[in-house]
Amino acid sequence: MTTHQQLIQVETRGRGTYEISREVKQAVEASGIHSGLCHVFTHHTSASLTLCENADPSVRRDLESFMIRLVPDGDPLYEHSLEGADDMPAHIRSILTNMDLTLPVTQGRCGLGTWQGVYLWEHRTHPHKRRVTVTVQGD
Amino acid sequence: MTTHQQLIQVETRGRGTYEISREVKQAVEASGIHSGLCHVFTHHTSASLTLCENADPSVRRDLESFMIRLVPDGDPLYEHSLEGADDMPAHIRSILTNMDLTLPVTQGRCGLGTWQGVYLWEHRTHPHKRRVTVTVQGD
Amino acid sequence: MTTHQQLIQVETRGRGTYEISREVKQAVEASGIHSGLCHVFTHHTSASLTLCENADPSVRRDLESFMIRLVPDGDPLYEHSLEGADDMPAHIRSILTNMDLTLPVTQGRCGLGTWQGVYLWEHRTHPHKRRVTVTVQGD
Repeated sequence: MTTHQQLIQVETRGRGTYEISREVKQAVEASGIHSGLCHVFTHHTSASLTLCENADPSVRRDLESFMIRLVPDGDPLYEHSLEGADDMPAHIRSILTNMDLTLPVTQGRCGLGTWQGVYLWEHRTHPHKRRVTVTVQGD
Repeated sequence: MTTHQQLIQVETRGRGTYEISREVKQAVEASGIHSGLCHVFTHHTSASLTLCENADPSVRRDLESFMIRLVPDGDPLYEHSLEGADDMPAHIRSILTNMDLTLPVTQGRCGLGTWQGVYLWEHRTHPHKRRVTVTVQGD
Repeated sequence: MTTHQQLIQVETRGRGTYEISREVKQAVEASGIHSGLCHVFTHHTSASLTLCENADPSVRRDLESFMIRLVPDGDPLYEHSLEGADDMPAHIRSILTNMDLTLPVTQGRCGLGTWQGVYLWEHRTHPHKRRVTVTVQGD
């Protein structure tokens, strides 16, 4: 049983979803682990990690529209708006969609379903550099 | 330290919550692991896994009512509606409630609280066959 | 590769977020594990665990205001109200924000981002004693 850990850096162009399935799969392959778990984690409070349908881009556009309506930018409800109208919404959106994600590793591969992609979701409107740590554990 | 992995298949009768606590507990027992983690994962983007109160069925009925109101079927907001009015809502509901879940394993047992049950939540209105992978890791 | 497990008890004073970053970090240090995963789990269905911005308390006040609006207490939608107006909202809020959380362990430390704190989120209005199990696994 071993642990393999590596860092992925994602340069975002502002709000939206950025697929990192390939990088996550490569980390699993680099680990040489046959059976176990693959944990993905982002070290921020205004970006999240999510599994989403990976075939039709309209799914991710609708997801964004839904979130914009659910957690409106510049809502007068928010006291915390130091960094702008998207500041507090970015924190809430990250909490609702999570900063961590764990996938099974089966027969040396990341056990994603056919339509599941791993996405880093940038919730701030401006570009950011996001750090993601992938930890693979198993036999 | 070892890894034990097995597949659970759930045949749903359409939208709703299906308890899989027994199957998850059996996987932990079959692993022979005394102390560690139990990861549960569903390989889909329109069903999720959740921990919910397991005593009063009205909790899960209210949960469903809440979700129907929060993520309405056939909302004109959605561009993606290829597979029907419940298509995009199923993706959003899965992302809000997650496709992965990790539980502690303590003294050879799944460390669920007294009132916690593990449920597969089918978000599509029609019946589906859902695959769930359970991975138990520990000593 | 080893597993280290310990229990944290949190006495809440009612609804709100309670930081447990120090306790989680201490569990990682006590484990002596250099590289791996740290899993945090609460054994309840009316409290959750979340990563939140740890610098400005207004973030957590806004988070609470957002949740109160999203999942109103005493909503006539709820059938389940046995234990009061905050009963069903506590279940929904826990499911939306999760009862489990996994962090990477890197170089013997909990790999939290600079602004990430680990919080137990009490969703009931009255004080409760909450149990949290921390499991650290790795080399």
